[in-house]
Amino acid sequence: MKLGCLNHVGVATPSIEQSLELYRTLFSAEPHGAPFDLPAQGVRVCFIDTPNSQIELIEPLGPDSPIAKFLEKNPLGGQHHICFEVPDIHAARAEFEAKGARVLGEPRLGAHGTLVFFVHPKDMGGMLTEIMEAPAH
Amino acid sequence: MKLGCLNHVGVATPSIEQSLELYRTLFSAEPHGAPFDLPAQGVRVCFIDTPNSQIELIEPLGPDSPIAKFLEKNPLGGQHHICFEVPDIHAARAEFEAKGARVLGEPRLGAHGTLVFFVHPKDMGGMLTEIMEAPAH
Repeated sequence: MKLGCLNHVGVATPSIEQSLELYRTLFSAEPHGAPFDLPAQGVRVCFIDTPNSQIELIEPLGPDSPIAKFLEKNPLGGQHHICFEVPDIHAARAEFEAKGARVLGEPRLGAHGTLVFFVHPKDMGGMLTEIMEAPAH
Repeated sequence: MKLGCLNHVGVATPSIEQSLELYRTLFSAEPHGAPFDLPAQGVRVCFIDTPNSQIELIEPLGPDSPIAKFLEKNPLGGQHHICFEVPDIHAARAEFEAKGARVLGEPRLGAHGTLVFFVHPKDMGGMLTEIMEAPAH
């Protein structure tokens, strides 16, 4: 497997609205579409385009959200994960597992409508890593 | 100012060699050139290319390195900063300061040979942010 595009950096925030205001003020950046809920992942998300990649703002959907603990430790928010594209999610998963990297759960539908999985930070140099099947475009 | 390219994600590591081994094993990724020291920033760095961006592995040059504290808290390493390009570093600095974002120190030579500065994480949603004059290429 080759290192694919850096699809996005996931940035946790206590408030997508406040973060959007920040990106608007400092970078004249507008969101790529309105924020939307991803209940299966317990987060509300909103993307901001850079010319070559994206920032994914993620806000907890409730107190049990998987990013709630991160925000307890980092109340202002911060970099939460990084996402690389692969051509085939199932092949990628098999390859990661064969190489001893712990894959967290079954591939599931991600924010871009393709399947994703996460790799345990302990097997990726401390970095929570999302692996995402590249969208068809 | 418009949001420029996501030039790289800065990933702190206790050992660039170990991280390179990890990227080699999991992603068949090779470094973009050999690691090199950036004494002015107290770090040793090495880039890994993705098709659209880069990962900047950063290892402390000594116990006083600005990333030493980060590694104390995150012994395995992890996402340390994010870097966006701007066309003009001095104009960007003036604009950030005019908008109340704290710029950390004078622009200085970065790992890509152009001037960079950092913005205080408290003014960037908890995310240490490097602003880099885009290379001429």
